[in-house]
Amino acid sequence: MPFINVKITDEDVTNEQKKAIIKGCTQLMVDVLNKTPSTTFVVIDEVNTDNWGIGFDQVTELRKKTMTSITE
Amino acid sequence: MPFINVKITDEDVTNEQKKAIIKGCTQLMVDVLNKTPSTTFVVIDEVNTDNWGIGFDQVTELRKKTMTSITE
Amino acid sequence: MPFINVKITDEDVTNEQKKAIIKGCTQLMVDVLNKTPSTTFVVIDEVNTDNWGIGFDQVTELRKKTMTSITE
Amino acid sequence: MPFINVKITDEDVTNEQKKAIIKGCTQLMVDVLNKTPSTTFVVIDEVNTDNWGIGFDQVTELRKKTMTSITE
Amino acid sequence: MPFINVKITDEDVTNEQKKAIIKGCTQLMVDVLNKTPSTTFVVIDEVNTDNWGIGFDQVTELRKKTMTSITE
Amino acid sequence: MPFINVKITDEDVTNEQKKAIIKGCTQLMVDVLNKTPSTTFVVIDEVNTDNWGIGFDQVTELRKKTMTSITE
Repeated sequence: MPFINVKITDEDVTNEQKKAIIKGCTQLMVDVLNKTPSTTFVVIDEVNTDNWGIGFDQVTELRKKTMTSITE
Repeated sequence: MPFINVKITDEDVTNEQKKAIIKGCTQLMVDVLNKTPSTTFVVIDEVNTDNWGIGFDQVTELRKKTMTSITE
Repeated sequence: MPFINVKITDEDVTNEQKKAIIKGCTQLMVDVLNKTPSTTFVVIDEVNTDNWGIGFDQVTELRKKTMTSITE
Repeated sequence: MPFINVKITDEDVTNEQKKAIIKGCTQLMVDVLNKTPSTTFVVIDEVNTDNWGIGFDQVTELRKKTMTSITE
Repeated sequence: MPFINVKITDEDVTNEQKKAIIKGCTQLMVDVLNKTPSTTFVVIDEVNTDNWGIGFDQVTELRKKTMTSITE
Repeated sequence: MPFINVKITDEDVTNEQKKAIIKGCTQLMVDVLNKTPSTTFVVIDEVNTDNWGIGFDQVTELRKKTMTSITE
């Protein structure tokens, strides 16, 4: 009966990627803990980059800095 | 001071249903634990069916399978 | 497939009370949203009163104030 | 490595306010627990007022009552 | 920067199993979303079986029923 | 009505530190969003270092590596 909550930023996550996350997390519970897939839940939260902070900064700002450094 | 987080899929949940969930959860805290309603919070998260997995599959896919089996 | 997380303080919650919370939350999902009980999860988190704050104060402190006012 | 999740209602929170929440929470972890900012995450969830209940009522309803009492 | 919260019941989860869950979830984020491991967090919550309900019942009770049916 | 959940590792967090976290988070909600303290909740989760992973490793292991590098 595991419940797995995956929080990621909402940066163009495709449906195929969501399916892969769901399959991978469920398989991990089966492989490691011998859990039953039918009662294993995976919930993905896509968080706006304005709403996620790391090291004092919004991810939105961190992405801009990274892109600037790449183009320069 | 209970905090209750209800995660459900975002499948046309009506405002009346949301009110009923809030009232029901709060009443349960009063009845079972004698908690004060004014400091009982209920937060409902509506999750896209693409983002909720059960038994390796997205709920979106599970809904399609169920509808197919009904119409057949 | 609802997932309900009930956070309460760890103040002598009995096993009977836990059962009542589980039953009540599950029944609410059945009554209001027509959900299937077998895929409805309820998880109760019992939080130490030192670790829960309301209005600047730990619940531990709030409980002491309340008890003092009662005995006085 | 703290992870701080701030749940608030989605009532016109500005980008400047989000930045201030991220900075304030991160600074608090540095000041109080001597944590490293680069591994301190802050995630803000903005919850629709229909989906947040206090004392049996949706926040949406509570806001209407408050506005009525002010104008009266 | 993913944050993954794995909630499981506290039924003799070994340290090796915890390591495998952490490695597996982190690898999944790298493989599927190309995320950076150093900012991928995995937090495992071990929940007492009295505090986890499925289909109206505590997992504690469900385990007893299963064991009875096996021995009979 | 903010709800703030602070997840940190359980490495000898003192009661004074918990009080400071509760006060700081609540004050931040007042200062930035003009929220009412009496309906601002702060819940601190102390997570065992075996149960928290960063970059494939348990924090328990990361702490050992750091201590070794310091003493060497």
